[in-house]
Amino acid sequence: MSILTVGTVAFDSIETPFGNAPRVLGGSASYLSLAAQYFCPDVRLVGIVGGDFPEEYVQLFRDSNVDLRGLEVKEEGDTFHWKGRYHYDLNERDTLDTQLNVLVDFEPTLPEDYRSSKIVCLGNLDPAVQRHVLEQVDDPEYVLCDTMNYWIEHTPDSLRETLTLVDCLVVNDSEARELADEPNLVRAASIIRDMGPETVIIKKGEHGALLFNGSTVFSAPAYPLEDIEDPTGAGDTFAGGLAGYLVRARAYGSQELRRGIIYGSAMASFAVERFGPGRLLELNEDLILERARAFRELAAIPKLQAFETA
Amino acid sequence: MSILTVGTVAFDSIETPFGNAPRVLGGSASYLSLAAQYFCPDVRLVGIVGGDFPEEYVQLFRDSNVDLRGLEVKEEGDTFHWKGRYHYDLNERDTLDTQLNVLVDFEPTLPEDYRSSKIVCLGNLDPAVQRHVLEQVDDPEYVLCDTMNYWIEHTPDSLRETLTLVDCLVVNDSEARELADEPNLVRAASIIRDMGPETVIIKKGEHGALLFNGSTVFSAPAYPLEDIEDPTGAGDTFAGGLAGYLVRARAYGSQELRRGIIYGSAMASFAVERFGPGRLLELNEDLILERARAFRELAAIPKLQAFETA
Repeated sequence: MSILTVGTVAFDSIETPFGNAPRVLGGSASYLSLAAQYFCPDVRLVGIVGGDFPEEYVQLFRDSNVDLRGLEVKEEGDTFHWKGRYHYDLNERDTLDTQLNVLVDFEPTLPEDYRSSKIVCLGNLDPAVQRHVLEQVDDPEYVLCDTMNYWIEHTPDSLRETLTLVDCLVVNDSEARELADEPNLVRAASIIRDMGPETVIIKKGEHGALLFNGSTVFSAPAYPLEDIEDPTGAGDTFAGGLAGYLVRARAYGSQELRRGIIYGSAMASFAVERFGPGRLLELNEDLILERARAFRELAAIPKLQAFETA
Repeated sequence: MSILTVGTVAFDSIETPFGNAPRVLGGSASYLSLAAQYFCPDVRLVGIVGGDFPEEYVQLFRDSNVDLRGLEVKEEGDTFHWKGRYHYDLNERDTLDTQLNVLVDFEPTLPEDYRSSKIVCLGNLDPAVQRHVLEQVDDPEYVLCDTMNYWIEHTPDSLRETLTLVDCLVVNDSEARELADEPNLVRAASIIRDMGPETVIIKKGEHGALLFNGSTVFSAPAYPLEDIEDPTGAGDTFAGGLAGYLVRARAYGSQELRRGIIYGSAMASFAVERFGPGRLLELNEDLILERARAFRELAAIPKLQAFETA
């Protein structure tokens, strides 16, 4: 089984109350693939970088066994560069600068082998590019999609068109509210599901995630961390872990989605412990399983017995 | 077993995007007692109202079997009146007006029978008044306490003194951050526990609640409601349901606290369905148990098997 991840491969320059990290490896495709590869031996990346993208970062993907045949290198261009600053509680951030660079006219053509990919992760990108990639995949079994406020505001029709092709939309709470134009998340989820995705997963950062699937709702907690260094990429890491687990389970029902969300949450809880994707490069099955199982204890509600009201 | 609840008994005038409700019954002691009485036949209220407090509201407590011998009626005064307006997503609110009225020089003396109360719920009030009440209870088995930003900012030393007498502090996330002067909730909880309370419960509104007790953390989800009419009193209702369950269990360990938080969350999820405490007046064991059990399904994480990393 194989996962195709498409998204940005970027330089992130990050400022937090606890420190700065200039030009670290970032981008949705980077975090998606580096998280997914722990669960799936065949993770295929589609993205674009410029001539300034260092060999050291390329090697980092190779060491993680990520297939880079879909990574276009535009020698005469510069790599997408995002600069952001987090507020003191790390829950909010301001974008200081966004240099799209080579991303501007990114129109990926998939390597022949990629067309057979079974799970497709459409990382945050122009919805038209997401569609363009999806159309090149022969017979995807399951399509996950992320997006952001920029596309909701600037290319609403194109985003709607992409959503009709998606099985599972993974967005954060503010994006869900804006996309559905509805403040209540339960209502927002059902409005979004009417747009196409059978399943909607709403990421709430330090508050966990909500799964809306079939007629049920699942509320996943966030792992209570004392030391969060950098939340950048947590959402993409979450989606990568989720997709990775789904490939492994090769089933997309409510139970698999619940497990996948916990694995995604576990991966994200590792990612935020360090600036950039560094922490994602040193994990293993035991660490991931131990962290995921800690979520079960964290959320465990004892059996409730009937009682006589006063 | 008996519960003593002390706090405000108020008129709330509430504006939400969905409607207005002038002078409805409100106040921390009101919601605490009306929630707790479903679990405990002996709920004793301590509070003060003015001559303007209508008989109809008094009757409402009587119909709910709340002991009002500790409710002081100051004929020449007016009842505490809070006016607030909620933002469109109901997660934030602005206080439009606060008339303390009879609350200004509230110095409750407990009826003799009240001194034997086993569980004491110190609702949001001047920490000195909370202490004054607690000192009149002979041998409390468990003391729960709520507070708010106003007391954290204006009477920090008095609040600290009260906290040394408390078993379980129940506050919302912004209050926890401010009290501990620490944005990270996990760190904030341990800082607050060093102030006295062995247990800290952090309410996060639509994001559920966190329990910090012993060496474990419990993350409780919030019930996903499509129709929230008025969040006023949800936090006090939560504490009332929690205290009520603890009296019933007559144990205060991690498992009882987890169950208590779920019952408290269930009660709060009913309270917000209607302006004022109206919805709290028409519940029964079956409804409460059914809602509480829905939380177990909402938070259920399937067993996680070992896997081979790629």
